[in-house]
Amino acid sequence: MTEEAARAFVPGHVTGFFSVHRPENPDPSVAGSRGGGVALSDGVTATVSPAAERSISFGGERIAMDAPENVLATLGVDARVEIETPLPLGTGFGVSGAAALGTALAVNAAFDRAHTENTLVEIAHAAEIEAGTGLGDVVAQARGGVPLRLEPGGPGTGELDGIPAAGRIEYVSFGSLSTADVLGGRTDEITEVGERALTDLREEPTIERFMAVSRTFARETGLLTPQVEETIADVTGTGGEAAMGMLGETVVSLGTGLTDAGYDPAVCRIYPPGATLAD
Amino acid sequence: MTEEAARAFVPGHVTGFFSVHRPENPDPSVAGSRGGGVALSDGVTATVSPAAERSISFGGERIAMDAPENVLATLGVDARVEIETPLPLGTGFGVSGAAALGTALAVNAAFDRAHTENTLVEIAHAAEIEAGTGLGDVVAQARGGVPLRLEPGGPGTGELDGIPAAGRIEYVSFGSLSTADVLGGRTDEITEVGERALTDLREEPTIERFMAVSRTFARETGLLTPQVEETIADVTGTGGEAAMGMLGETVVSLGTGLTDAGYDPAVCRIYPPGATLAD
Repeated sequence: MTEEAARAFVPGHVTGFFSVHRPENPDPSVAGSRGGGVALSDGVTATVSPAAERSISFGGERIAMDAPENVLATLGVDARVEIETPLPLGTGFGVSGAAALGTALAVNAAFDRAHTENTLVEIAHAAEIEAGTGLGDVVAQARGGVPLRLEPGGPGTGELDGIPAAGRIEYVSFGSLSTADVLGGRTDEITEVGERALTDLREEPTIERFMAVSRTFARETGLLTPQVEETIADVTGTGGEAAMGMLGETVVSLGTGLTDAGYDPAVCRIYPPGATLAD
Repeated sequence: MTEEAARAFVPGHVTGFFSVHRPENPDPSVAGSRGGGVALSDGVTATVSPAAERSISFGGERIAMDAPENVLATLGVDARVEIETPLPLGTGFGVSGAAALGTALAVNAAFDRAHTENTLVEIAHAAEIEAGTGLGDVVAQARGGVPLRLEPGGPGTGELDGIPAAGRIEYVSFGSLSTADVLGGRTDEITEVGERALTDLREEPTIERFMAVSRTFARETGLLTPQVEETIADVTGTGGEAAMGMLGETVVSLGTGLTDAGYDPAVCRIYPPGATLAD
């Protein structure tokens, strides 16, 4: 065993629309969500070092974070995990899922575990679902680009496709919405609206249609907040494309949409590579 | 329709071992190969521009190249395709498959065709199989990294996994071997040896084991040439890891393996992203 520190990078992921699938079977590998999102060049770096006891730090501060802790437990290693990201936590950027997947990839390298990519994605996907912090970010972050989750679940169960797209993305975040509250509540209506959004998008799978069906999803599910609604209207009113990031008080735009509308957004890009081990 | 030029980048791909699967059913989407390989940061750029008639150029010269021509025919567009690459043709780097996949991605963007990534990979995979120039490069190049082809076929039929790995790759090429000759000949024995290599690798899916099973595959199938055998021995004799690239008189090494053995190789890296549309 080398047991040296190892590092992985996982893109952020903004979900535009989704539907929830929790089978009777409690196996988290077959739970998940259908939906669509965008992987971002702003993401999470996870650095894993062997240590006497397990710990997670976020931006240098000790933190309790269930998803990466579940990954350490599944892989049965004692390690220090350092999470660094420019993305805000709890605002719909998939930071929790990225931390789980980055931890899995980096543990595999640091402890010479010889798991394949599918196995590591599966472990991180299950860890995120057990933590209750997300249902589909991990598989999307493993793929990169503009992932479509056609069938829910981890590798071997779920089915992915993607919209070929590139270019600048801008985002602003006004605060948190609780994923656990929404996913713990009545999700039947969300699922019905989300299924319809996916069907609409598959008829014309372009990035512009993705933004349009995501706006419809946010409105019809009632997840849209007044602040998000106003911001999206500002962007579309100046000819841009914007949508709400699920689940947060977050707005993303294509190109310079938010800037053109007078906002001071963070700037990144669509990130076609999926999660990767650093050299 | 914008109908502007569009560009895509597709990594090179060196196959270490493979098995051939041609079903009774002549549908090329379910044909293909199992096997393992490495996606390379040296790859193919395909630039597609609308034009009055179809043409393919390679490094600025008009060329007949069946795989990308088949893609243009399938998508039903008249376009000029310009292929640029530092990789040599016909020596086991998957240039033909990369040209097909890059053409599919760039046509989709240039002609606003609104196909998904899976559809474009499927079209390029079928185009490559019809051309007889390869059986598994396209799906591997779409994924990137160190792809394992667990089940043959295009998206939705085939099944992929990957070995998480990063780092420097060196390569030398001494000349061509004809893919069409080998794939057109008796492939039963190759397939038996290739299946065994995949089973061996899945017991310990690391990049070092990948190199070892690839060496065994080259020796046991009789595809090893004297020049390749000598070069691999030079690298392993100085403590490095090397294998033959299928199908060419090509040797790849991890890290500085070929340099350490006194060769003057081309240098690139394992390329985790798959094929992508350029910005």
